[in-house]
Amino acid sequence: MTDTLRIAVIGAGYWGPNLARNFRASPHWELAAVCDLDLDRAGRLAGPGSGVRVTSSVEALLADDTLDAVAIATPAATHHDIACAALAAGKHVLVEKPLADTSGRGEAMARAAAENSLVLMTDHTYCYTPAVLKIRELIEEGALGDILFIDSVRINLGLIQPDVDVFWDLAPHDLSIIDFVLPGGLRPLSVSAQGADPLGAGKACVGYLTLPLQHGAIAHVHVNWLSPTKIRTMIIGGTKRTLVWDDLNPQQRVSVYDRGVDLQTQSLDGVERRAAAISYRLGDTWSPALSEREALDSMVAEFATSIRERRAPRTDAGSGLRVLEVLEAASRSLAQGAVVTYPIAPHATELHAQLAGELA
Amino acid sequence: MTDTLRIAVIGAGYWGPNLARNFRASPHWELAAVCDLDLDRAGRLAGPGSGVRVTSSVEALLADDTLDAVAIATPAATHHDIACAALAAGKHVLVEKPLADTSGRGEAMARAAAENSLVLMTDHTYCYTPAVLKIRELIEEGALGDILFIDSVRINLGLIQPDVDVFWDLAPHDLSIIDFVLPGGLRPLSVSAQGADPLGAGKACVGYLTLPLQHGAIAHVHVNWLSPTKIRTMIIGGTKRTLVWDDLNPQQRVSVYDRGVDLQTQSLDGVERRAAAISYRLGDTWSPALSEREALDSMVAEFATSIRERRAPRTDAGSGLRVLEVLEAASRSLAQGAVVTYPIAPHATELHAQLAGELA
Amino acid sequence: MTDTLRIAVIGAGYWGPNLARNFRASPHWELAAVCDLDLDRAGRLAGPGSGVRVTSSVEALLADDTLDAVAIATPAATHHDIACAALAAGKHVLVEKPLADTSGRGEAMARAAAENSLVLMTDHTYCYTPAVLKIRELIEEGALGDILFIDSVRINLGLIQPDVDVFWDLAPHDLSIIDFVLPGGLRPLSVSAQGADPLGAGKACVGYLTLPLQHGAIAHVHVNWLSPTKIRTMIIGGTKRTLVWDDLNPQQRVSVYDRGVDLQTQSLDGVERRAAAISYRLGDTWSPALSEREALDSMVAEFATSIRERRAPRTDAGSGLRVLEVLEAASRSLAQGAVVTYPIAPHATELHAQLAGELA
Amino acid sequence: MTDTLRIAVIGAGYWGPNLARNFRASPHWELAAVCDLDLDRAGRLAGPGSGVRVTSSVEALLADDTLDAVAIATPAATHHDIACAALAAGKHVLVEKPLADTSGRGEAMARAAAENSLVLMTDHTYCYTPAVLKIRELIEEGALGDILFIDSVRINLGLIQPDVDVFWDLAPHDLSIIDFVLPGGLRPLSVSAQGADPLGAGKACVGYLTLPLQHGAIAHVHVNWLSPTKIRTMIIGGTKRTLVWDDLNPQQRVSVYDRGVDLQTQSLDGVERRAAAISYRLGDTWSPALSEREALDSMVAEFATSIRERRAPRTDAGSGLRVLEVLEAASRSLAQGAVVTYPIAPHATELHAQLAGELA
Repeated sequence: MTDTLRIAVIGAGYWGPNLARNFRASPHWELAAVCDLDLDRAGRLAGPGSGVRVTSSVEALLADDTLDAVAIATPAATHHDIACAALAAGKHVLVEKPLADTSGRGEAMARAAAENSLVLMTDHTYCYTPAVLKIRELIEEGALGDILFIDSVRINLGLIQPDVDVFWDLAPHDLSIIDFVLPGGLRPLSVSAQGADPLGAGKACVGYLTLPLQHGAIAHVHVNWLSPTKIRTMIIGGTKRTLVWDDLNPQQRVSVYDRGVDLQTQSLDGVERRAAAISYRLGDTWSPALSEREALDSMVAEFATSIRERRAPRTDAGSGLRVLEVLEAASRSLAQGAVVTYPIAPHATELHAQLAGELA
Repeated sequence: MTDTLRIAVIGAGYWGPNLARNFRASPHWELAAVCDLDLDRAGRLAGPGSGVRVTSSVEALLADDTLDAVAIATPAATHHDIACAALAAGKHVLVEKPLADTSGRGEAMARAAAENSLVLMTDHTYCYTPAVLKIRELIEEGALGDILFIDSVRINLGLIQPDVDVFWDLAPHDLSIIDFVLPGGLRPLSVSAQGADPLGAGKACVGYLTLPLQHGAIAHVHVNWLSPTKIRTMIIGGTKRTLVWDDLNPQQRVSVYDRGVDLQTQSLDGVERRAAAISYRLGDTWSPALSEREALDSMVAEFATSIRERRAPRTDAGSGLRVLEVLEAASRSLAQGAVVTYPIAPHATELHAQLAGELA
Repeated sequence: MTDTLRIAVIGAGYWGPNLARNFRASPHWELAAVCDLDLDRAGRLAGPGSGVRVTSSVEALLADDTLDAVAIATPAATHHDIACAALAAGKHVLVEKPLADTSGRGEAMARAAAENSLVLMTDHTYCYTPAVLKIRELIEEGALGDILFIDSVRINLGLIQPDVDVFWDLAPHDLSIIDFVLPGGLRPLSVSAQGADPLGAGKACVGYLTLPLQHGAIAHVHVNWLSPTKIRTMIIGGTKRTLVWDDLNPQQRVSVYDRGVDLQTQSLDGVERRAAAISYRLGDTWSPALSEREALDSMVAEFATSIRERRAPRTDAGSGLRVLEVLEAASRSLAQGAVVTYPIAPHATELHAQLAGELA
Repeated sequence: MTDTLRIAVIGAGYWGPNLARNFRASPHWELAAVCDLDLDRAGRLAGPGSGVRVTSSVEALLADDTLDAVAIATPAATHHDIACAALAAGKHVLVEKPLADTSGRGEAMARAAAENSLVLMTDHTYCYTPAVLKIRELIEEGALGDILFIDSVRINLGLIQPDVDVFWDLAPHDLSIIDFVLPGGLRPLSVSAQGADPLGAGKACVGYLTLPLQHGAIAHVHVNWLSPTKIRTMIIGGTKRTLVWDDLNPQQRVSVYDRGVDLQTQSLDGVERRAAAISYRLGDTWSPALSEREALDSMVAEFATSIRERRAPRTDAGSGLRVLEVLEAASRSLAQGAVVTYPIAPHATELHAQLAGELA
């Protein structure tokens, strides 16, 4: 391995310490600085006598030429300005999810990264869990066949957030995972959201998101702050096999079922008919062994490797943008009580392609 | 108990034998006749030397003055004609679900029953399981408080039906149960259905149904023929407690969680604000003991008792109609890709009230 | 297939009807007669107008030359006399478990069968469930490697039997299954039983059975009438893989874990040491698809096939005897508060070999 | 609250850091010193610039008059000498389990503590989990009635320990819990152990422990290093209710079943007979909400409170001794292949009583 990369963590609140801990422990990285408006908090995170620089000034931080990259763990509304400043200063950037507070600003960040040939990565941590990495691998190698449906449930008795509804609080997890495992990323044909605020909290506390996909497939997400039981399950149905991920079952998180329905196409009276011949497969179930590596450790390694290989990281700005766009469409659907045709911003998709190209 | 009532079962196919077996075993009933176009099949169901009359003619059957009631287990398209003939002949009628093939015909049947002061009951069998009876009782006595949300999942690797989609095949169970346990029955403000046919079977194989209820509450149903794992779960969230019914867990089918979110309304600056004060309850869980009585046995007893007491049965024609109307609205929503405002037929609700009154 | 075999069921009480139903439905068999001291009960089981002979006399029954076999479902104390009479009359015999009330009588039955070159089969129904058949197959083909331990738990809130303790009531299931899946059958080096009667019922209601096996392996059985939760689990650990059978999980009854501990033998200072090098395998889990065939249907088919092929059935008299002997040893261990060295009757094992040989 | 107590942690290896962290965070305690032969390790645990004293000399440590107590987290063989020195120096003592390497030395420690009127506490951490505290409370208040049986299973794919067998590695947890929740502590009538070493590791890797209790009750422990599935379940059957503790089910760790068997005593022919009238209760299940307090935090609080109130702590030296004595009896039973009558050291029980008295 070549020399370690030097990183600063900006934001020492809830998520920053997790990032700092993993950068510190990673052989790829040297934690060089911690930046927070609250200097005390930054100092505690840096650690007494650790030699890690402590500052409350982003400007001063970015003036440090020995820094290779920054990790931004500040409120979403500040992501755009800090990230653009860091990119202008020639730093690679990791941003805590969501990428930005609006897709428009997220796009500007992506464009700035592409123009400077720098890595802009979204910290979709869940994508780096051993379970999700395995699911992506299985789909990639064709073990499930074509994807028919994805059903994701993430419900729990949760804190009612003061600033966001249940969609913006919980669905980013589901959406970033779906984006990560689907071969072409998450590109729904339309977005339909249904929510309920039965307690009168002023925002949806129960939410359903329906995302029709190409070729008749569908994705659906159920997020809920009011459930007394905790469920975190994703079912991914394919033409060959169906996978069930139960994140709360440590003894068997991922199960692959070799069961399904086969429809044969027949030509009857010159008309193509598929339903004519149905057969059911009742095969074995298989549960792959998963590594025990911490997700954040894999994530910071991917950040380093993408910088070194001058390639887009697995969860690049495009994935952050796609998640943002679906959330924005969901909010619009919720407000209008209607289905929102997607992509809302057709240029976004083109932009994605363009950005991916420029980095390469 | 007074004398037993005499019943004929019409239709000796899939469901008829279950009905016949339960009428035979019930102290309330005497199985008097079996009617089927296929006389052999009817004969086998009646049993050799049993004394149970066998006939292929509905007309001849209905001419029998000693018959008190008939149970119709024929295809849905034939329910209307047979039921109306039976009602005209003065017989009480039990109809296998769905009540009819269209809500218009269902209404005609309900009107005929009301005009003749006869009982017309829908065989929503699931409503008579010990679990659902207990859920209804708990909601009725206020154990859950006001209902906030209902989330029902019924998925399995299922037969792709030749004539109906997954909504019409599976959702009648969920809808009839929701109708049964909600104090005022199922009366959604609108109906929104999303489906997918990823295999090209010519009909939805994966379906989601969203039903906004009064006071900001919501009901949601997920039905799916393509899931390799079988799930049958209904979560009913209330202001006081939340109930989870897991029909595949025989050791703990119904759990009542004394956990939840409490929002207090506060008047701030003259404006009513609710989110201001949130508290979380983390109380005990409680699982009531359930009887082991067979659902069909309770159902045929309810049919007899409603006849004797000259009252509407618990699953009357109105419940059958409400389920039909939601299914029809779902089909329309699916076809239009839009939310369908409910009630589609405003007179239906009035009709329900009127019919309930007339019988009494 | 050659002609069907003609069978009579003796005993129309609890188990007889199950046998009769399966013989009736089997293409291998013709149900020729039902025999019970209670002629009415026998008649109801035979069915009116069925042509099946009804009798209360075993003697008269056995005089029927057209009968090929009898199935005995009478109380255990009567098994010996009826079976011996049937064997003397040249009939093949199936006996409900336990084979007899004592191992001595069981041996006499086995000897009589061998001398007459007739099949004597024990109805260890559980052995013919798809799960147990699959387990036997997996062990036979070496998928688990050498067996290291078997832990079987069968607990439930159960009826306190008037005549037998919890060992004799429940453990025959576990023991017959272990006998069935272990390559050489169940041949423990000793038997140690611990029981408790904390309610003062006059017999053990909670029981533990420890059975050291060859090569340091061990089998252990926990049977319990007082548990409010129902558990039916068997763990079979092998040098290669470990299998878990959870009979109450219909969605995943059998799981095979490719996890384990590997000990390498090393020669240190001329002494063989094994613990020196330990490695842990954390491999995949695999759950084979199981057929849905009813166990009793497979069992009656095996009875017919063993008769036709003139071979010992899979659950022959020897398996019935081995189960009896362990139960008797357990009772002795319980009474003495000591470990009982096994085999109690050394000649039994020789007898098994001899009997197996004579039939062939 | 009065002033905080000053504690030193002796041993900075595996368990010491957990103790130090909890003493540091407790309002009852001030972490005053860390002692380890490896000064560097002690220094790291104390923390740079923390003001916590670091030393490698127990003698020097004990000379510190400002110290109120020491916590010993060194190898078991050293517990006796360190604890006796500390007690002689007038310090209260907490000892990591097991109390000592032999019950003889444990007794000597207990006697020394009693003679000096100092608290000697065993760190049976599991006893301070919210689940076990709740179980103790339920039994104490009579919710279960009289205890009929306890069945504890603790199995997992575990490290084969170089120095101890599976009984000494895992069973201390089960035994200390049983000792903690049983009103009179764990006082079996005899001890019977069965073990197996099927891999040839030189020690038992699979173990069963049977402990007959007074009044016909029984406790049984299954410990196993070779199971690919992890199970940690304890069933406690009582005359009134039965409790199931599933430590791996965070959503419902403790369930109380109001189900059971009732035997009525009847006098028949002058003879007392109990089995005559059996009735089964099938009542509700109830799962108490549990606090989320960390066990070690409760444990260090109990240590402080027992010192202040001059009373025996909940897990005193007696509990440590009773666990040791059962483990020693188990080893003896294993070696002799026999049941070991308990108590092995009758004076021990008397000693317990005496010690408890002296402290008070």
